Amino acid sequence: MTTSKTPVSIDLLIKKIAEKRNPTVAGLDPALDLIPEFLKKNAYEKHGETLRGAAKAVLKFNKGLIDALYDIVPAVKPQSAFYEALGVEGIKALHRTCEYAKKRGMYVILDGKRGDIGTSASGYAAAYLSGVKAGETECVSFPVDALTVNAYLGSDGVTPFVEACEKHHKSIFVLVKTSNPSSGELQDRLVDGRPVYELMGEMCGEWGKKLFGKYGYSAVGAVVGATYPEQIKTLREMLPNTFFLIPGYGAQGASAADLTAAFDKNGLGGAVNSSRGIIAAYKKEGCDERDYAGAARREAVRMRDDITRRIICR
Amino acid sequence: MTTSKTPVSIDLLIKKIAEKRNPTVAGLDPALDLIPEFLKKNAYEKHGETLRGAAKAVLKFNKGLIDALYDIVPAVKPQSAFYEALGVEGIKALHRTCEYAKKRGMYVILDGKRGDIGTSASGYAAAYLSGVKAGETECVSFPVDALTVNAYLGSDGVTPFVEACEKHHKSIFVLVKTSNPSSGELQDRLVDGRPVYELMGEMCGEWGKKLFGKYGYSAVGAVVGATYPEQIKTLREMLPNTFFLIPGYGAQGASAADLTAAFDKNGLGGAVNSSRGIIAAYKKEGCDERDYAGAARREAVRMRDDITRRIICR
Repeated sequence: MTTSKTPVSIDLLIKKIAEKRNPTVAGLDPALDLIPEFLKKNAYEKHGETLRGAAKAVLKFNKGLIDALYDIVPAVKPQSAFYEALGVEGIKALHRTCEYAKKRGMYVILDGKRGDIGTSASGYAAAYLSGVKAGETECVSFPVDALTVNAYLGSDGVTPFVEACEKHHKSIFVLVKTSNPSSGELQDRLVDGRPVYELMGEMCGEWGKKLFGKYGYSAVGAVVGATYPEQIKTLREMLPNTFFLIPGYGAQGASAADLTAAFDKNGLGGAVNSSRGIIAAYKKEGCDERDYAGAARREAVRMRDDITRRIICR
Repeated sequence: MTTSKTPVSIDLLIKKIAEKRNPTVAGLDPALDLIPEFLKKNAYEKHGETLRGAAKAVLKFNKGLIDALYDIVPAVKPQSAFYEALGVEGIKALHRTCEYAKKRGMYVILDGKRGDIGTSASGYAAAYLSGVKAGETECVSFPVDALTVNAYLGSDGVTPFVEACEKHHKSIFVLVKTSNPSSGELQDRLVDGRPVYELMGEMCGEWGKKLFGKYGYSAVGAVVGATYPEQIKTLREMLPNTFFLIPGYGAQGASAADLTAAFDKNGLGGAVNSSRGIIAAYKKEGCDERDYAGAARREAVRMRDDITRRIICR
């Protein structure tokens, strides 16, 4: 395996969004209770009620979703937690999911929210952005295009990621204002009269200054929850060159109207994630669980149309 | 595999520290450039210059270190980044390292600095603290005793970890004041006249309130860098029932004198990590690299004696 030298950066994601006229990211968060029973039953019959069995069901589930979505949705965002939950076998399923999504032409954002002091951050950057050298051989550790990053530790914990983005044409998304109900406990507290998320947003803008792509957005993006529309607006004004990864649409409660402020006049500048809303659409729809991928596609179409009624991506 | 119901919590770590009269944690951070050449050469000859080859060298390195340390050092702290850097094969080596350290009677703290919104935090809690159910079978995903947690997302991202600690007798260490040079960029900023790390410390104390062990310390601990001795002192006064995981000794520059304030009158209340200082002691010592484990033990003895000149653990 050799590391890819193909330029990807944020431009590749934006290009895919513009081509598909769809700023949606499908979050691949395969909690076991979201996976159709028939997939689990088949996998457990073959591999036993083991982590391996569960991981095989996850991979099958994901491949079905990717096959149903790849021509209309530009990107997937696997949530690392749900793969780690299945141990080594789960990580194998994660690796193969990323590989499969890339083979299908999708942009892969690993949602790992990694962050550490400099030396360890270099390890994470190697894992997901730059690869490692085994002897004289360059190896790709995980085939992903972008990683989410937690910057509670400050600049020296972020710099290794930024350097890897530059050298290996990858992107990161730094947690600025997260979509969850408690995000304000720390992120909304005022520092010199301004909330912590603005301070983090400002640092995020600084880290990304050297890495602008051809659409005017940096390879250092920000995670900004759709559940906080006012904050999206403020952050967009503060950070005109920062691409936003926007969770919170659908199952978490945000609507298309909540996130329009993230987008520029060309309908670009953001990617909206829905996880459970898409991958477990079969439950909400009440269709036969064997049609889970069809239901995911129907929800992805509905979501695309819902968003692009307000935002025209071009 | 079934989940362990043995009570571990923070008491098990404290018991091991008291028994060995040594509050040291050996950080297993196997960056490839810290691994002796002969181990890499052997592994690459057998498995090729691949991620598998590199991961085999890591596992061999770690087993040698554990064999040399387990009778004098109570705990190991593998840094997840360096295993993730080697892809699926690295995660296998991580799993086997944790298993081997536990077999040798060591307390295993996975340094993953995980954190996410509630549903995803539950995935991480399953991975490292509670295990998962595959069908009707309880499975252990990674055999660890404790996990480091990043709480930038607030309470709903931490609660799943706390609940798993309670139910499965595990511990977490929440990042409060980290040891790196840039930690102050966010953590030292003032919120209502108090630095962010104090706010985080206070939340950490709240999260741990239900989980006190028999030594008076909670299963929800805090990461507090030895490189910031004044902050250790303040946090210890604020948080008399919070156990501190203390990185920064050795290679990062802190001395034994810097961390005495973390400990109570019985010499308990903290565990001091050294990673490169111990595992790459052979480089600093300049001995034959084949004696890397011997050098690690000599440094661990020196470190123990250096710290316990000031703190008597009993």
